[in-house]
Amino acid sequence: MKLHSKMFSQFVRQLTTNSCNHQSVPLTKVRYPHLKRGQYAEISEKHIQMFERIVSKNQILTDPSDVEPYNIDWLKMVCGYSSVVLKPRNTEEVSEILKFCNDENIAVCPQGGRTGVVGGSVPVFDEVIVSTQLMNKIISIDPITGVLICQAGCVLENLDSALNEKGLTMPLDLGAKGSCHIGGNVSTNAGGIRYLRYGSLHGNVLGIEAVKADGKILDCLGTMKKDNTGYHLKNLFIGSEGTLGLVTKVAIKCPPKPKAVNVAFIGLESFENILSVFQLAKSELAEVLSAFEMMDAPSMHSVVDVYHVKSPVEKCPFYALIETSGSNASHDEEKLTSFLEKGMAEGLIIDGTVTGEPSRMLNLWQLREGIPEAILHSKENCYVYKYDISLPPQQFYQIVDECKKRLEGKNYSLCCGYGHVGDCNLHLNVSIPEYSPEITNILEPFVFEWTAHYGGSISAEHGIGFKKTQYLHLSKTAESIEVMRQLKQVFDPKGILNPYKVLPDV
Amino acid sequence: MKLHSKMFSQFVRQLTTNSCNHQSVPLTKVRYPHLKRGQYAEISEKHIQMFERIVSKNQILTDPSDVEPYNIDWLKMVCGYSSVVLKPRNTEEVSEILKFCNDENIAVCPQGGRTGVVGGSVPVFDEVIVSTQLMNKIISIDPITGVLICQAGCVLENLDSALNEKGLTMPLDLGAKGSCHIGGNVSTNAGGIRYLRYGSLHGNVLGIEAVKADGKILDCLGTMKKDNTGYHLKNLFIGSEGTLGLVTKVAIKCPPKPKAVNVAFIGLESFENILSVFQLAKSELAEVLSAFEMMDAPSMHSVVDVYHVKSPVEKCPFYALIETSGSNASHDEEKLTSFLEKGMAEGLIIDGTVTGEPSRMLNLWQLREGIPEAILHSKENCYVYKYDISLPPQQFYQIVDECKKRLEGKNYSLCCGYGHVGDCNLHLNVSIPEYSPEITNILEPFVFEWTAHYGGSISAEHGIGFKKTQYLHLSKTAESIEVMRQLKQVFDPKGILNPYKVLPDV
Repeated sequence: MKLHSKMFSQFVRQLTTNSCNHQSVPLTKVRYPHLKRGQYAEISEKHIQMFERIVSKNQILTDPSDVEPYNIDWLKMVCGYSSVVLKPRNTEEVSEILKFCNDENIAVCPQGGRTGVVGGSVPVFDEVIVSTQLMNKIISIDPITGVLICQAGCVLENLDSALNEKGLTMPLDLGAKGSCHIGGNVSTNAGGIRYLRYGSLHGNVLGIEAVKADGKILDCLGTMKKDNTGYHLKNLFIGSEGTLGLVTKVAIKCPPKPKAVNVAFIGLESFENILSVFQLAKSELAEVLSAFEMMDAPSMHSVVDVYHVKSPVEKCPFYALIETSGSNASHDEEKLTSFLEKGMAEGLIIDGTVTGEPSRMLNLWQLREGIPEAILHSKENCYVYKYDISLPPQQFYQIVDECKKRLEGKNYSLCCGYGHVGDCNLHLNVSIPEYSPEITNILEPFVFEWTAHYGGSISAEHGIGFKKTQYLHLSKTAESIEVMRQLKQVFDPKGILNPYKVLPDV
Repeated sequence: MKLHSKMFSQFVRQLTTNSCNHQSVPLTKVRYPHLKRGQYAEISEKHIQMFERIVSKNQILTDPSDVEPYNIDWLKMVCGYSSVVLKPRNTEEVSEILKFCNDENIAVCPQGGRTGVVGGSVPVFDEVIVSTQLMNKIISIDPITGVLICQAGCVLENLDSALNEKGLTMPLDLGAKGSCHIGGNVSTNAGGIRYLRYGSLHGNVLGIEAVKADGKILDCLGTMKKDNTGYHLKNLFIGSEGTLGLVTKVAIKCPPKPKAVNVAFIGLESFENILSVFQLAKSELAEVLSAFEMMDAPSMHSVVDVYHVKSPVEKCPFYALIETSGSNASHDEEKLTSFLEKGMAEGLIIDGTVTGEPSRMLNLWQLREGIPEAILHSKENCYVYKYDISLPPQQFYQIVDECKKRLEGKNYSLCCGYGHVGDCNLHLNVSIPEYSPEITNILEPFVFEWTAHYGGSISAEHGIGFKKTQYLHLSKTAESIEVMRQLKQVFDPKGILNPYKVLPDV
């Protein structure tokens, strides 16, 4: 059973192409005129010839129309002007490319599936793009230990399919699974919808192979769950967004594929009731609880409108999607039924539906997973501010109300919140008819400062990338940022790897 | 319900005191004459006076008989000759101590509960001991998010008790829980018996506060599960054994306390059958499986002999302890019964007992947890080689047979294996009547090289510490070790923090 069909992804991609806005994407250097290009070499014919000695011709793109898509992020918000894309097939080619670039002082933008939202995976200026697209081999799957070893360019959904055949599943799942690469997932420490059940990549990734800026290969590709021999270097690559090294291989421990999955979709009166129901779910569903997602009415109604689907429950101010997965269908159903009955008896749940039938579960998941795209493609929402933040439960939804207050009387179409409430991870979206510096100033840095004030994180899942470097200090202390700079110096003394990302300019 | 009573820990401690061997512990500098003391300052009266300005007099031990226990590890294998123990009460005091030591070039040995087995937590020469003993405050427990924040010196068992009152539990449990400190657990990335269920500290620790060698406080004490803002510095402190900084506070996410716990203890014919039963357990028990421990006959019989207990199952070549914990007692019992019935029907399980009764579960756990001490205190085993390794399932027990082969005809009392088979973590023990260089040479470096050859880890749970630095290269590449040295240089340029540990001499 697959919860997220390829068909749905294709449907979404089609919508993206027909988007009302972003017909042309301004160059990042134009939109951010204060930014200065680093003192890196400009790519010449000589460099291209050298690249051709390292990889074969069909692994190099230089035709502007071929290169263009690699320069633009999927949100069409940032756009570099790189003239060359390199597609190494293996670690050795990556090593040779980086060694040459380091020697020649050429800036490099490592690129996976280009599904990030903070501009981390496309060039800012003319960095050479090194795409992991052709590094897409599964090296091994051990059905006994559950360990998967693969190249960095494997697409998440393909990994999950291959694992499914061996009775295993990926501990990571997210909306972009049809195109994101595992190397990018690891480099950004992707979170997603299974985080609640299986935890973070720091816990699940057993080993990493990465290439440093100087081309040296760091083989930390261990497969043992327990290995306390020296500093845990692999963990430094998790979430460093390609600025410390280019991840080439990953070993990850994969749990058994659940035998039974059920999804409940419920309507609620208030956000407080969502928190109460979440506590009830933790107690009643406990070890079989595998997702607890929330969405407010505006988020949900965007999906209903854009995809012309029918809501499975009556109109409510809030909705939640609850998934269980376990080893015994009747046990799980019994737990879920008891949980829902208690929730209704306590007046927390207004209306609800529950199913274990694959196609119906898929429909319910689409209501949640379709939101980001639906908001982007509502006709009246031509510019969307997307904030990916963590907040303590008490403040989780309050930020949405705070934003609405600040936007009162302004020309905005939508201010909504949805996300992984089980992980305290909110996606706050504000859409407006067209880009407005006034609205930007109302929202920023307000959202980030408010989040920091309550001990949240200004970037829960998506990293700092290019877009949030100036706000890093709100989530990290000056001493920590200083140490980060020193680490960057150790791994990449010339600063050729993914420049202008993660760390703010000094 | 508590699986591991304080009474048992006290019993074990009593045994330790009455040990047949190790009446006097030779100084490490005598046992390892090739080692050279670093060019650190020798402690003078002036230094002591300065320490007295930073902390109050009752936080400083200088009387040799007071200091002595802090110089010796619990295995009584290594012994430093430090003349001073400092017991800061808070981060600020740690910061001032380290700043002063760094300025004066004084070597420091950070110390927690002193329960490690690789000599990581006691001085090698005369390093000043900084004990976290008085930093034992729980700062907060959030019953909604499950986040615990505490000082580094909190004893693991005390944390679990405090959490239990709020319906939560520690994701970490291990035999030394009655005395180990959470700061030490984090600094060594302790594994233990709940790893199978809740995973590693890299996944569970949300935040860390640590003091660098220069006294600068790194506040990475976030409490958000998802926080992708910059490099994940906290993960560098997990498992770096106090050589990059002294961990002062920890934030850790704690799961709900299971409502139902059951333990099965079974006898099996062969190690192959243990692997088959483990696969069956993963499939049948899945999300409620919380421990899968194995022991061979010699391990089990040591416990039976030393503690004068009766085996709950008939004599077999192998035994396994299987624990389930979940939210619904009858569901868990049904799963466990079905699993045991299948195991017996397939001829994998010879004999078994199962219980959900707290005192009986405790007895069964003691059969497994009592092994390390039992081996140490069998009258004929006066010297014990203890190896803590990870190995792929296929080689997991083979190493025990290999060692037996190599020891054939030699004067050894016991060669046995037990451990966390669910995590591929074996504790291999060889005991001999008295210390013998010949036996040492038979076992070392053989055990480490054999482990490395099969892709295992030469230190699964216990780190490198002082004892394994010369073997680090077997589990980590030269490039990785080079990067580790560079990181050490960033965090501790003078090398005052826990010298002679983790990284080999150059």
